[in-house]
Amino acid sequence: MLQESACSWMRPVERRWWWSRRLRHMTNDEVIFSGIQPTGVPHLGNYLGALRQWVKLQNESSPDTILLFSIVDLHAITAKQDPKQLAIWRKAMLASLLAVGLDPKRCIIFAQSSVKQHAELMWILSCSASMGYLSRMTQWKARIIDRMMQNWSADILQSKLALPENASPLQHTANKDAVKLGLFSYPVLQAADILLYNTTHVPVGEDQAQHLEFSRDLAIGFNHLYASENSTPLLVVPQTLLSPAKRVMSLSSPTKKMSKSDPSPKSRILITDSNETIHSKLRMAITDSIEGVSYDRGKRPGVSNLVDLIYHFDESAAASPEELAADMKDLSLKALKERAAYKINLGLREIRSQYGELMSGDQKQLIERAEDGAKRAEEIAEATMKRVRNAIGMGL
Amino acid sequence: MLQESACSWMRPVERRWWWSRRLRHMTNDEVIFSGIQPTGVPHLGNYLGALRQWVKLQNESSPDTILLFSIVDLHAITAKQDPKQLAIWRKAMLASLLAVGLDPKRCIIFAQSSVKQHAELMWILSCSASMGYLSRMTQWKARIIDRMMQNWSADILQSKLALPENASPLQHTANKDAVKLGLFSYPVLQAADILLYNTTHVPVGEDQAQHLEFSRDLAIGFNHLYASENSTPLLVVPQTLLSPAKRVMSLSSPTKKMSKSDPSPKSRILITDSNETIHSKLRMAITDSIEGVSYDRGKRPGVSNLVDLIYHFDESAAASPEELAADMKDLSLKALKERAAYKINLGLREIRSQYGELMSGDQKQLIERAEDGAKRAEEIAEATMKRVRNAIGMGL
Repeated sequence: MLQESACSWMRPVERRWWWSRRLRHMTNDEVIFSGIQPTGVPHLGNYLGALRQWVKLQNESSPDTILLFSIVDLHAITAKQDPKQLAIWRKAMLASLLAVGLDPKRCIIFAQSSVKQHAELMWILSCSASMGYLSRMTQWKARIIDRMMQNWSADILQSKLALPENASPLQHTANKDAVKLGLFSYPVLQAADILLYNTTHVPVGEDQAQHLEFSRDLAIGFNHLYASENSTPLLVVPQTLLSPAKRVMSLSSPTKKMSKSDPSPKSRILITDSNETIHSKLRMAITDSIEGVSYDRGKRPGVSNLVDLIYHFDESAAASPEELAADMKDLSLKALKERAAYKINLGLREIRSQYGELMSGDQKQLIERAEDGAKRAEEIAEATMKRVRNAIGMGL
Repeated sequence: MLQESACSWMRPVERRWWWSRRLRHMTNDEVIFSGIQPTGVPHLGNYLGALRQWVKLQNESSPDTILLFSIVDLHAITAKQDPKQLAIWRKAMLASLLAVGLDPKRCIIFAQSSVKQHAELMWILSCSASMGYLSRMTQWKARIIDRMMQNWSADILQSKLALPENASPLQHTANKDAVKLGLFSYPVLQAADILLYNTTHVPVGEDQAQHLEFSRDLAIGFNHLYASENSTPLLVVPQTLLSPAKRVMSLSSPTKKMSKSDPSPKSRILITDSNETIHSKLRMAITDSIEGVSYDRGKRPGVSNLVDLIYHFDESAAASPEELAADMKDLSLKALKERAAYKINLGLREIRSQYGELMSGDQKQLIERAEDGAKRAEEIAEATMKRVRNAIGMGL
C-alpha cells in the first residue's frame, strides 16, 4: 500500500527522535494539527500509528499548546464514496477519536467539511500554487493508485499499478475515469487545512514530508506577497513533528502493512472488535513453522508482528520487542497468539465500550461534540481568514 | 484582447435573438445569475455590453424571477492584484452596479468572496471535474494571455502571445511565473458560482459558452451520481441566455475593442468620467479623413463606433445605426464627436452622480448594501449546500 486508506495525514514512520523531547521544547503559542480520513472504524495500524500518538501528544504537550484533530472528509471524496457509508464513517471516526481517549475539552476535534474556511483558503492558495510543482509531486500518483485500490478489487489492479515515473495527470489513462481535479489539487487543500489554524507543528509520516514542504512554501510565498512589515505573521509556517513509528503488519500476509484495503477482514483487527473476534482473528494469523518465539522481522514477519503487538500494548513489560521475544522464547506459537489476543483485548476493551456507548441510541452526545468542535475550529479559522482577506484586499 | 478584463462573465456578443422574447417565456422558478470582475470603474464597453443589459433584465423579467449579480473577486485573484487597489475596485464595482440602476431590492448584488459556499462547492465539484477536460478548455490559454496583458506592458508581450494549440498548463513557460492552479481550475469555481443559486439562465457571451457547457456537464454528472430519484433536482442545470451584443471599440484604435488593458486612458470612457473628460476624449478620438458621416465598420471603424455610441445612448432616435448615420450624413466629424460627447454625457450624468454619492463620505450605504446582498445570497447558497452535503454523505 502506497497510501494507508484511513489516514492521509498521519502514518507510522521510522522513529527519528523521541517526540516527548520535542514536546518539552514547545512554547506557549504552539498549535498541533493533524487529520485523518473517515474510512470506517480504525484498525490497529491506524490506532497504534496515529490515534494513540495523538492521545500521547494530548497528554504530554504543554497545557498552552492548542491541539486540533480533524476528520478530513473533504479529502475522502477525492475517491468515489458511497454517501450513506461516508455518513456512517464520519460518525464512526468521531466516535473512535473520542473512544481512544482524545478529550474534547483539551483538543478541538471536528469534521473538515463543517468549517467552510478550508475550501475558502484552498482557493486563495490555488492562486499561488504552481501547476508544474503540483504535477511533479509524487503523492498524486500514489493516491491515484490508492483510490483505485479502494474502489476496485486487487486482482483487476495488478495490471494497472505500473504508473510510469513521468506519468502526467492530464494523460493518465490507467483508469477509464479520468483523473479528477480534486485528486491533483488536494495538496493545496491540505496546506489550507494546516495554515488555517496557525499550526506550528504537524505530526507527519515521512511520505507526507513533501506535502508539508509544499505547505511551508505556500505560506512563505504568501507572506512574502501579502504580509505587511510590522504585523503578526499572516500565515504561520509549520514544522514537521515526525512521529515515532509503529509498524503494524497484516495478520494474513505479515510482509504487508495492515490495511483497510485488504479484501480479507481477517487481516486486520478493528479497535471495536469483540474479545471473541480478536481471538478468532489471532488464531488464524499467519506465522511460520519454526518452533518457539524469536524476533526477526525479515525472517519471521508473522511472529515478529505478534511480538510487536504485545509490546505496543504493554510497553512496560520489556525494553524492546527483541527483549520481549527473548522473554517468551519458549512459548508455542499457539500460546503466543493467545497472549497477543489477550493483550490486544485488554488494550481495546475500554475503547470498544466507549465507542459502543457513543454510537448507541440517538447519538446526541456525538452530535453535540461534532457541533462544538466545529464551532471552536471555525473561530480560529475565521480569525485567520479575516487576516488573509484583509491582506489580499477582500476585507469588507 | 482575448479576455475583457472587467468581465469574465458577461461580454458583448453577436445578437442572436431578442432576449425580451425569451424573458416573456420565463416561468416563476427562474433564476438569472451573472458575474463581473472588480477591475475598476467600468468603461462604456462594460456598461453597454454587460451592466446595462443586466438593468434591462431586471426591468423586463417577471417579478418572480430571481436575479443575482456577483462581483467575482475570487476570480480576480487568478491574476496578480495589488490588495489596496483590489479593495478599492471591489467597492467601485459595487457602487457602479448600483449607480447604473440595479435595484438592491429587486436583485441580489454581492461579492463572491463574502459567500464561502462558492469555494466549498468548488472543492466538491473538483472531485468530479476531469483534469483532461479542463486542460482541453481553450479559455485557460486566453486567460493566461489576458493575465499577462494586465500585468505586463504590451510590447514585452508581443513575443509571448503565441501559445501553441497544444500548450500544456504543466509546461507553460511563456511567463517566468509558472501557471497557477487557480488559473487552470477557475472554470470549476465558475460552475460553482452558477450552480449554488439554482440558476436557470446565465447571460453569457459566445466565448463563455464552453464554460457554461462545462457547468451543465458537472451538474448533470453530479445529479446522476447523487440525486435520489423522487427528490427535487440536486443541482439545477443552467441554460445560456445569449445577450444582444453591444460592440464598443477603442477611441484611439477603433479596430480593437474598448478595453481596460489599453495603456492609453484616452482609449476608453469610464462611466464616471466628467462632462469635460468625455468631451476631451471624444475630441481626440481617432476617425478618418473622409468628409461627412457614413456607417461602415470595416472601412470607417472610428466614425462607425461614434455612430454606434450615439445610437446606443439614444435608441429611439433611429431604427439602426445605419439609419442614424444617414440622418447625420452632412455633419462634420467635429460635430459628430461633439454630438457623441453630448449624448454620452447625457446617458452617464445620472450614473456619475449616483456613483459619486455612493462613494462619498463614510460609504455607509455601500457597506450596508454589500452586507445585505451577501446575506441574501448566502441564504440561497446555504440551502443548496445543505442539499449537496446531505447527498454526498456530509450532512451533520
